Amino acid sequence: MRAYHVRPGSTGRVRSEVGKATNVFWNEGKLSREERWKQFGARGGTVWFTGLSASGKSTITAALEQVLVQRGVRAYRLDGDNLRHGLNKDLGFSASDRTENIRRVGEVAKLFAEAGSVALSAFISPYVRDRNEVRERHVEAGLPFLEVYVAAPLETCEQRDPKGLYKKARAGLIAGFTGIDDPYEPPTRPDLVLRTDTMDVAECIQACLELLGGHGLLPAGD
Amino acid sequence: MRAYHVRPGSTGRVRSEVGKATNVFWNEGKLSREERWKQFGARGGTVWFTGLSASGKSTITAALEQVLVQRGVRAYRLDGDNLRHGLNKDLGFSASDRTENIRRVGEVAKLFAEAGSVALSAFISPYVRDRNEVRERHVEAGLPFLEVYVAAPLETCEQRDPKGLYKKARAGLIAGFTGIDDPYEPPTRPDLVLRTDTMDVAECIQACLELLGGHGLLPAGD
Repeated sequence: MRAYHVRPGSTGRVRSEVGKATNVFWNEGKLSREERWKQFGARGGTVWFTGLSASGKSTITAALEQVLVQRGVRAYRLDGDNLRHGLNKDLGFSASDRTENIRRVGEVAKLFAEAGSVALSAFISPYVRDRNEVRERHVEAGLPFLEVYVAAPLETCEQRDPKGLYKKARAGLIAGFTGIDDPYEPPTRPDLVLRTDTMDVAECIQACLELLGGHGLLPAGD
Repeated sequence: MRAYHVRPGSTGRVRSEVGKATNVFWNEGKLSREERWKQFGARGGTVWFTGLSASGKSTITAALEQVLVQRGVRAYRLDGDNLRHGLNKDLGFSASDRTENIRRVGEVAKLFAEAGSVALSAFISPYVRDRNEVRERHVEAGLPFLEVYVAAPLETCEQRDPKGLYKKARAGLIAGFTGIDDPYEPPTRPDLVLRTDTMDVAECIQACLELLGGHGLLPAGD
């Protein structure tokens, strides 16, 4: 084992030679958010996409994630696929379980934001109260939170119906389906509205990039 | 709004000019883990620190996080401070709540690993079964999982007792305290053992860096 040369300073700053790297320092405290973000040259934040099933949340966030990652932005998409099968696998679709689902997604998004990533949350998240709660938790933590309303008329979503869910809901095979027999409460003051019945994916991505850039979530000069 | 020039290809690859950047592409599918990690020039993974209260988990992971971040590694520390007050604030310290606490931490660590970060988990996580469950979930997802046993004799931890918790537990003011009246089950095959009663912080960090480097979790050439 190579030796460490440790020289504790009066400031609590510690210097050592670690492996091949010299001048490795740490403070005897936790890394602050500001130090972390400065080191990464980027701010973290949460972009929350809400909208009906088949409104286009997955398509837009998947494409946006790719574009952001190509630009070196640490974007990460949170959606039902990676949450409902893991962290939230104990939750169903009752009103209280939906609320707890969104609460947990919001807390995970906060951790990613804190860590300097841009969390892209893609959940129907039908209730205003639940989304406002997530926003509140970000605001009190001093973390950026942007709400994007992925808006398409119900009839458009129902025509798309890529998973055949609306058809099943109409046939009474799924109960409590958002837009059919469970309410969707649109955002009252979204940071961005994407009308996916009239805008194509590229236009949606451009609008998102402008939103993110305007809130300092893109690398400087980009 | 600037216009997008979209040219859908037969491969499903889409090219557009986004803002000032040209040649921005996305595929009509999700970004794969491999594409993400390649783009970031780093692999993600989870390093799971387990040990008694006051064994040194917080001190070591806080210092390690700083050293890693200075090297450009996207390390992020998961601990009681950021989990118990947020995601897991609905959980107490019963055996079943401890299990659920660790399950959720494990799932969040997995998301960070998937996203290309190095999650540093600092929880007592006293039960072998719970830790093995987290390991299993990583293994089945193909994500690196390294278990670090922060080992100090109970008497050392009890002497340190920075928060006075052992004293309270001995006085019967805290019930179910790990090491006193609740079991701590040491790892049977940890990837690394840090004897914090004989090693200093710098030695512990060096050992961790060697572990991470050996598993491809440090940038190439570092």
